[in-house]
Amino acid sequence: MGSLPALLVRPVAGHSTSTGEHTVSALTLADARQIIAAAEARANEIGQPQNIAVVDAGGNLVAHVRMDGAWIGSIDVSINKAWTARAFEIPTVDLGAFSQPGTQFYGIQVSNHGRVMIFAGGLPLRRDGRVVGGIGVSGGTGEQDQTVAEAGAAAL
Amino acid sequence: MGSLPALLVRPVAGHSTSTGEHTVSALTLADARQIIAAAEARANEIGQPQNIAVVDAGGNLVAHVRMDGAWIGSIDVSINKAWTARAFEIPTVDLGAFSQPGTQFYGIQVSNHGRVMIFAGGLPLRRDGRVVGGIGVSGGTGEQDQTVAEAGAAAL
Amino acid sequence: MGSLPALLVRPVAGHSTSTGEHTVSALTLADARQIIAAAEARANEIGQPQNIAVVDAGGNLVAHVRMDGAWIGSIDVSINKAWTARAFEIPTVDLGAFSQPGTQFYGIQVSNHGRVMIFAGGLPLRRDGRVVGGIGVSGGTGEQDQTVAEAGAAAL
Amino acid sequence: MGSLPALLVRPVAGHSTSTGEHTVSALTLADARQIIAAAEARANEIGQPQNIAVVDAGGNLVAHVRMDGAWIGSIDVSINKAWTARAFEIPTVDLGAFSQPGTQFYGIQVSNHGRVMIFAGGLPLRRDGRVVGGIGVSGGTGEQDQTVAEAGAAAL
Repeated sequence: MGSLPALLVRPVAGHSTSTGEHTVSALTLADARQIIAAAEARANEIGQPQNIAVVDAGGNLVAHVRMDGAWIGSIDVSINKAWTARAFEIPTVDLGAFSQPGTQFYGIQVSNHGRVMIFAGGLPLRRDGRVVGGIGVSGGTGEQDQTVAEAGAAAL
Repeated sequence: MGSLPALLVRPVAGHSTSTGEHTVSALTLADARQIIAAAEARANEIGQPQNIAVVDAGGNLVAHVRMDGAWIGSIDVSINKAWTARAFEIPTVDLGAFSQPGTQFYGIQVSNHGRVMIFAGGLPLRRDGRVVGGIGVSGGTGEQDQTVAEAGAAAL
Repeated sequence: MGSLPALLVRPVAGHSTSTGEHTVSALTLADARQIIAAAEARANEIGQPQNIAVVDAGGNLVAHVRMDGAWIGSIDVSINKAWTARAFEIPTVDLGAFSQPGTQFYGIQVSNHGRVMIFAGGLPLRRDGRVVGGIGVSGGTGEQDQTVAEAGAAAL
Repeated sequence: MGSLPALLVRPVAGHSTSTGEHTVSALTLADARQIIAAAEARANEIGQPQNIAVVDAGGNLVAHVRMDGAWIGSIDVSINKAWTARAFEIPTVDLGAFSQPGTQFYGIQVSNHGRVMIFAGGLPLRRDGRVVGGIGVSGGTGEQDQTVAEAGAAAL
């Protein structure tokens, strides 16, 4: 399998919302709206309408918006990027790098009933170092989706 | 089957956004947010957290919010109530009445890959008499979902 | 719609894991094993092999066992009963009562991609009054599933 | 296509639990728990929370656990790695090698409704040379998943 990328050597403390503890930090609708507002501002800045979705620690949708003119095919993609980023606690672009032919997760995208998105635009959302949800952005190029997702994630 | 209710005898003008004309009244994200804000206010008024979804004329999601504490099982239900109300241009509660055992649409709920919701909480959204989208609310009793959907629809 | 059953008039405090607060009580694997052990003991007591599943607050599977001789068709059913009970914060048998023809949630079982189970055997799991997950039991009659689920839920 | 690897030239005796005989060596829940306990011990040893699943000769789930902090996206992956390893009687990492672009099974991962996992972490479970089930592990790198699956399989 070769040497492992540093990214995948996750400290136990950093990748869990439930490691033997009895509380989990919740992601509220107010949090989601703040995240979406920041993402939307960035999307306007670069002139690219986007679908923006936020899921909580359970991977369940908290809020979604489709900006006027954004692709309808990206509704599902944005929601599933958010889910993937939370479910595997990894930016979807990085999961994509590990899922190319010949790499260790090749084929993972057929699991979970088609919910696993392996290209840029999904990021885990963290609070106090813990993953408490995910943001997914879809509607532009990989670079555009990524920068909008980053703006959103930074707002938490 | 008996006579059809007036509700189902739809004037051509009333049920289409694309009957030979070259414009469709679009439902914008700003519209959806206004609708959701009104629905959310009503949900707070009755003290019942809800999932609220708005779809456009194409039946595609424009925006969704899950209020803090609303059921996660209702995410999908709210989105699909909105879709159903727009897709069949009928309140979901009325479609439900026509879908009971022994009635003319019995079984319709298994069509469209599980998207057809046949209980209260979904309403078509109209502008100038035309259906331009749908709102779906899920998270409470049928009565609660219905009143919140009505508040949302009235805001358009 | 008629008068609403008391069961559905949920106090805001009692049905939510994320009502504006920033922590959620987590359900650990140790919790799930304790719940399953109690359910299994009850299943043995009544002489009925069962599938037993436990999900957390996000509706995601924490643990599942199929007792020797239990139906393979019940694997999926047990997991989805657990999911349903958590997702709608209601015993599945009660959701079933509200989903019969002519009642307010008739047709809900086609939502959520076939995950909604509307017969006995699924119960929300509560800690300090909050829903933190669900247990689902399938493999016997409705009565048998129910008593085994109750034994499990009581162990939390 | 080139010559087939020895691995795929399976002796009749080695790949079947039902070739004309009237008994199948059953994998019990007790077996599954023993396998899971060994896998879990190895996961703790390497400090990586995992999802661990065991299926029987029919490919049907016997037991699953998600260790605290393990990815929720890996629930489905672990169950399907176990299924794949049993269904094709091959370690999933080897099936992966035969499923790369340009190789003979390229595309197999879209069959079986997304259940075919083609990366490390799934192993057939054998008793007296016969495949009686499968173990699937997901939650870490390919190397981590593999070592945990091997520890589990060795316990049978």
